[in-house]
Amino acid sequence: MKPVLGIVMGDASGVGPEVTVKALAQTEAACRFLVIGDRRTFDAAASLAGVVFAGIPAYAEDGSARIQLLDTANLDPSAFRRGEGSLASARAVIEDLHTALDMLKTSAIAGLVFGPLDKKKLREAGQAYRDEHEMFADYLGMPGEGDAVNVLDGVWAGRVTSHIPLSEVSGSLSVERILKTVRRIDGYLRATGHKLPRIAVSALNPHCGEGGSCGREELDCIIPAIEQARVEGINASGPIPADMICVRTFLQKDFDGIVSMFHDQAQTGIKLLAKRRSITVTGGLPYPICTTSHGTGYDLAGTGRALSVSMEQAIAVAADMIATATAGNS
Amino acid sequence: MKPVLGIVMGDASGVGPEVTVKALAQTEAACRFLVIGDRRTFDAAASLAGVVFAGIPAYAEDGSARIQLLDTANLDPSAFRRGEGSLASARAVIEDLHTALDMLKTSAIAGLVFGPLDKKKLREAGQAYRDEHEMFADYLGMPGEGDAVNVLDGVWAGRVTSHIPLSEVSGSLSVERILKTVRRIDGYLRATGHKLPRIAVSALNPHCGEGGSCGREELDCIIPAIEQARVEGINASGPIPADMICVRTFLQKDFDGIVSMFHDQAQTGIKLLAKRRSITVTGGLPYPICTTSHGTGYDLAGTGRALSVSMEQAIAVAADMIATATAGNS
Repeated sequence: MKPVLGIVMGDASGVGPEVTVKALAQTEAACRFLVIGDRRTFDAAASLAGVVFAGIPAYAEDGSARIQLLDTANLDPSAFRRGEGSLASARAVIEDLHTALDMLKTSAIAGLVFGPLDKKKLREAGQAYRDEHEMFADYLGMPGEGDAVNVLDGVWAGRVTSHIPLSEVSGSLSVERILKTVRRIDGYLRATGHKLPRIAVSALNPHCGEGGSCGREELDCIIPAIEQARVEGINASGPIPADMICVRTFLQKDFDGIVSMFHDQAQTGIKLLAKRRSITVTGGLPYPICTTSHGTGYDLAGTGRALSVSMEQAIAVAADMIATATAGNS
Repeated sequence: MKPVLGIVMGDASGVGPEVTVKALAQTEAACRFLVIGDRRTFDAAASLAGVVFAGIPAYAEDGSARIQLLDTANLDPSAFRRGEGSLASARAVIEDLHTALDMLKTSAIAGLVFGPLDKKKLREAGQAYRDEHEMFADYLGMPGEGDAVNVLDGVWAGRVTSHIPLSEVSGSLSVERILKTVRRIDGYLRATGHKLPRIAVSALNPHCGEGGSCGREELDCIIPAIEQARVEGINASGPIPADMICVRTFLQKDFDGIVSMFHDQAQTGIKLLAKRRSITVTGGLPYPICTTSHGTGYDLAGTGRALSVSMEQAIAVAADMIATATAGNS
């Protein structure tokens, strides 16, 4: 039987359930799906989206249906309103995510896709993490490992630093930290079929630091990391001027992956190009975990007009990652 | 008679002369043109580009021709090779630029457009400036004033800091410095016809500093500068997350201008969108001075295949600036 991809709908007060049912209705991914969440939430979303499923059976370990549902029965539809964050829906989605992570550990599911979360409400519900990637890593006993990797049109983009003040970026860079992200992006690209992926490593300073007269991080960390990566057989290039890295990668097709030094560096270009197609992968964990790049979309929640493009991409990328891992193991 | 726009072809070893003649051949700008440079360089470029001009008369103060040429006769065609930077062509273009700046001061020309320069060769020729904007300001007796402003599709984008190491950006920000750039962009946009231009002021930190937990510059400098700008009657908004500022400005059309905190911030998005259309204005000087956003293009120099889109835009924007200034004075 085909591997099972776990699906958590995201915060039920946002567009997550709606984009989930829309994406499930049209995905052609070569796997089965297990929705982990409250059945009432799922049914309401299907009704809102005008999607009709031909009966979705309850989860059974040996069930063969293409879509099954593990009813967590943890969210009374009257306990929250669509379009407004709520503690009830935040608590329910935390529970659903924990269930999914447990099932990843026991291989009951081979990967996880989740809908958008409300970071503020997660914090109010006691999950004091920078983001969900950190939260997953901690729950899985791998603190410090989870971080966001963006995927757009087959290009994987990781960053050496993420949710820290810009003034702390320079002091946080080291050859080893840059290398870690380079290796990670290289690994993901190899896992998705690239034999020798071309990885662009971004500069930090204007014009790559102009040979040291406009910042020394290129000379002190970035170039040594690129050189070491090449010694390890990784096809890393750079430093590439930060304001050209997306032009060269997405328009000129010079590279397959990007390593940037801080949060907004490649992200600025990716958001401009994405038109909703980009997704986020939780990097550094031994499981395929993907989510949409958009948020809860409270302004659209309940209207039935939310677009499921990013959720469809998240499912497609997770399914690809599962297929590659399965092929590698067989 | 129509006002005169001065034209300096840029470093003759690059594509500057070629894009200049191509742009002049097709511009419909409502002004006359004075090319300031070596006539042999101009003629060779016209021949390379396959452009035929119906006789270009020598400069005369009371000349009425649409295009005139002030022959600086300072560059022997055998003294340099197209596609390779040279000291001879760098020295000649410095001389041409100085002539043009002198003519700006005496109002012999009303604005200046110049082709791409070779910064490295300029330095070797003794012009030890970060960029040409600083060089112009110094020559005009306004040290510290010139900086690059990018213009794309009518959107004007300035930056509070430019050619400094990223690690020095945070320490270089102040309410007054941010306000200065906000006022400047507001002024340019008003001068080009906006009654109350909408100006997006960028954040510095990821997610706008998350209320101070991820960097304090938004609270300490950026928000106070925006508030002060609004008190002054400027329609400034923000801080806008750096990775969304180009999406909101260029795709969603929420803003007419951008103020970013450092070199690569909005530039990353502008380069991605520009497809050669963007140009650079020397900000902070009391003259319209525009140039292409691309460089000398040594790989294309001499092939006749260089595109003149950016040069055409530079001429169009300078002509607009002259027209508005003239209207304002009449």
